[in-house]
Amino acid sequence: MGIHATFKVIPLGVGPSISKYVAEAVRVLREMGYKPVVGPADTSVEVGSLEEIGRILRRIHDTLTAMGAPRIITIITVDDRRDKDTPLEYKAEKVESLLSLKPL
Amino acid sequence: MGIHATFKVIPLGVGPSISKYVAEAVRVLREMGYKPVVGPADTSVEVGSLEEIGRILRRIHDTLTAMGAPRIITIITVDDRRDKDTPLEYKAEKVESLLSLKPL
Amino acid sequence: MGIHATFKVIPLGVGPSISKYVAEAVRVLREMGYKPVVGPADTSVEVGSLEEIGRILRRIHDTLTAMGAPRIITIITVDDRRDKDTPLEYKAEKVESLLSLKPL
Amino acid sequence: MGIHATFKVIPLGVGPSISKYVAEAVRVLREMGYKPVVGPADTSVEVGSLEEIGRILRRIHDTLTAMGAPRIITIITVDDRRDKDTPLEYKAEKVESLLSLKPL
Repeated sequence: MGIHATFKVIPLGVGPSISKYVAEAVRVLREMGYKPVVGPADTSVEVGSLEEIGRILRRIHDTLTAMGAPRIITIITVDDRRDKDTPLEYKAEKVESLLSLKPL
Repeated sequence: MGIHATFKVIPLGVGPSISKYVAEAVRVLREMGYKPVVGPADTSVEVGSLEEIGRILRRIHDTLTAMGAPRIITIITVDDRRDKDTPLEYKAEKVESLLSLKPL
Repeated sequence: MGIHATFKVIPLGVGPSISKYVAEAVRVLREMGYKPVVGPADTSVEVGSLEEIGRILRRIHDTLTAMGAPRIITIITVDDRRDKDTPLEYKAEKVESLLSLKPL
Repeated sequence: MGIHATFKVIPLGVGPSISKYVAEAVRVLREMGYKPVVGPADTSVEVGSLEEIGRILRRIHDTLTAMGAPRIITIITVDDRRDKDTPLEYKAEKVESLLSLKPL
């Protein structure tokens, strides 16, 4: 309940263009049943437990290794809030709505 | 040219709900003339130089300090690519287009 | 093998001083049998599998929740290198040795 | 003032081994007069102002670009605390001392 995980996957040793690897990571997330929100710098999902994050990492890294990446650096941001349930999609909306209340 | 900076602002000492601080950080970015892309976990902008990142940090942290935050942890991801110019908005689109070429 | 995981644990809603929470996270890592390298900004361990990262997160977050943190943001950097085995302790040493070869 | 900045520099397009680039980044920090604390995953310094972070990024990225890196992703963690002055070296010590008070 209410755990958001954001993944930034950086394969090394495959050249400077990494979007096809990022796309495969997003595909893995979809195949696992998540609804990834893809942004310019990373991809967020809502997970049911912290253990799932380990399983997601395993699936993504195995996939990228099979594609030829000898080294993968992944940065994950976990937001685990237990006092309140905020859906993932609501977070950016909340910020936008706070901004519109007090416009520039 | 082509420098993307992604900001995750975490004020400490202001309770567990931080969206109003995040909204102010986004407002600062807009006031400075940037076009922030707000996601569930962070906010991205395209900047003209690496020095601008220092100036953005200064403006955001001063604003959040004035709002009462005694401590601010900000995580910035800088993506500085000099061999190719990719607009910020294009990154998520590129991933989506790679995914649609080879659907689930 | 050779998976390095670096944890930066940020409890929200507990005031601006978080070192006792960070210390408990390090204690959890030790209790689980890891040898944490504690730095000024984060703590690194060598893990045997990516799934372990999910189990570590679970143990740390449950401990910090029990201590009273209503929300926990954890940033994890995973470095998964499969072409070469570099012990965790060797990484900073390698950088230092490269620096000493070509001093200031 | 108590601003701590932690840099993780990841050059892309130069193969899976990046320690010589990391070493150059540390050298730049030393040349600029900082006292970098090198860890297994990143390097921390104490800075006098947030603007310095932009200037550091510029120097490091220009150096790594000159070494041949076509793309550089840098993750910076800024810890800006204004209610209390904690020296960088003291942070890991504080955690260790809290751990020793209540041993395993």
